[in-house]
Amino acid sequence: MNIKSMLNQFRVPPDTKVKLRDHDPAWEGDAKLSQEERRQAAEELLEKNIDELTEAQGLLYASDKWSVLVILQAMDAAGKDGTVKHVLSGVNPQGVDVTSFKRPSEEELDHDFLWRCVKALPERGKIGIFNRSYYEEVLTVKVHPELVVKERIPDAEPDRKKFWKNRYESINDFEKHLSRNGTRIVKFFLNVSRDEQKRRQLERINDPAKQWKFEPGDLVERQHWDEYMDAFETLLRETSTKQAPWYIIPADKKWVCRSLVASILAHEIRQLDLQYPQLSDDQMQNLQQGKQQLEAE
Amino acid sequence: MNIKSMLNQFRVPPDTKVKLRDHDPAWEGDAKLSQEERRQAAEELLEKNIDELTEAQGLLYASDKWSVLVILQAMDAAGKDGTVKHVLSGVNPQGVDVTSFKRPSEEELDHDFLWRCVKALPERGKIGIFNRSYYEEVLTVKVHPELVVKERIPDAEPDRKKFWKNRYESINDFEKHLSRNGTRIVKFFLNVSRDEQKRRQLERINDPAKQWKFEPGDLVERQHWDEYMDAFETLLRETSTKQAPWYIIPADKKWVCRSLVASILAHEIRQLDLQYPQLSDDQMQNLQQGKQQLEAE
Repeated sequence: MNIKSMLNQFRVPPDTKVKLRDHDPAWEGDAKLSQEERRQAAEELLEKNIDELTEAQGLLYASDKWSVLVILQAMDAAGKDGTVKHVLSGVNPQGVDVTSFKRPSEEELDHDFLWRCVKALPERGKIGIFNRSYYEEVLTVKVHPELVVKERIPDAEPDRKKFWKNRYESINDFEKHLSRNGTRIVKFFLNVSRDEQKRRQLERINDPAKQWKFEPGDLVERQHWDEYMDAFETLLRETSTKQAPWYIIPADKKWVCRSLVASILAHEIRQLDLQYPQLSDDQMQNLQQGKQQLEAE
Repeated sequence: MNIKSMLNQFRVPPDTKVKLRDHDPAWEGDAKLSQEERRQAAEELLEKNIDELTEAQGLLYASDKWSVLVILQAMDAAGKDGTVKHVLSGVNPQGVDVTSFKRPSEEELDHDFLWRCVKALPERGKIGIFNRSYYEEVLTVKVHPELVVKERIPDAEPDRKKFWKNRYESINDFEKHLSRNGTRIVKFFLNVSRDEQKRRQLERINDPAKQWKFEPGDLVERQHWDEYMDAFETLLRETSTKQAPWYIIPADKKWVCRSLVASILAHEIRQLDLQYPQLSDDQMQNLQQGKQQLEAE
């Protein structure tokens, strides 16, 4: 599968209505090949793209011009943690910052909903991964509007459409600002099916090495599946933009998910057309002086 | 070389006078083997220890009890960045935070000298790497005591021994506090020779892909080599403690340096005797309820 058709298939074009039922979470590539062949091809692609990411990160750091912000959103057990681990392991950890956003603290609730994420933005030259993000504010908070009360926003009206429209606008404006100032934003929705989530949650419960990951709250959220899908459909339509596109990644097969994320991310960084920094005349002169000084010792 | 003799050879025992001239930066292992054999053994060891670190990090995260703080200090071009890259790549980036400390900002100078490092400490379950640290305050700042003026400390007397004694004491007290509260601290001094530094700095100047890394200031510091070695000797004696030991790592051969750091770090984490968390009765009941709920769907 070439990168162009991959982008076309999984990227959400701006201002486009999204129906998640048209996106198969169990998609696993070219049906003409056997599953084994497809799996092998995906694993080779993953390895190739990890190498490419590793190289791209070095250049990103050297050129010190762009930063890359990767946002991962999904239902529980869709594979966010595993994607970070398998796609970004191998990349120099000095160039990657991963931030996992959990339930906001009192201090965080006492600020606007972008604030805690702003503090964690990647600096120029780095790749920042947000494992969950301010998008929770139009997902979890939208499904549980009573949470807005805790945010103590003056005259908040979460029962009105306008309130959520304003949040999408805040997000789009924020991402436009970042993009204008040198942050490339890439957003992945890992699209797992309700059945596959059940299978993985049961696996977590039954495996002693995974039981510690189980949280009863995850099953509560599962009861709100359809509301979450509605919220995802709306945010995908409202916030997939040219400067910060959303990709809907089929996530029922882990190898499909990881391979697609690695390919798309490597492609996105490649697009930045990174180069080693050009030295100024002064810097070149410094180099020459340094050389003479060292050689004269 | 077994781990015990490795630790004995490279760890600085508490309250011990250190003479760096007794530590060969070009050490490369058992002289009975050929260099090729030693190099191969070191590379195998590095790979084995990276795998072990990867596994240990997973358990560190799951057990959520300890954090690990790794401090790297060295002269320019000793290989700090390369060590981070080669030892920690492969470990899940979600479990590793790398912080590089550069020239302090105005805001940082307006706080005590530990402050900016406190903010970057790894949370429970994570490995934090400090690429340089508060030890710069008894290295660069000691070699250039005029920098103390910028810190605007009331009645500071950097010309008196007592001033520096107090800094070692602050550092030891701070590390004791961290250690009592669940942070395992491991400190590496990458010991490069003056000749090897020259070779690497010239290489940087001559290689177009590395020229951007050159800073004239690095050659200035090189002029103060002996003063830096004095400062290192003193801090190694004053701040190598049971709870936060220093290791002096021969760094002229990159493969020796990386393999030793990986081995020692893996050993240190192994010593924490990490286990998957024990679930409470309540949590076990939650698991059972969750299972029933999912299976009943």
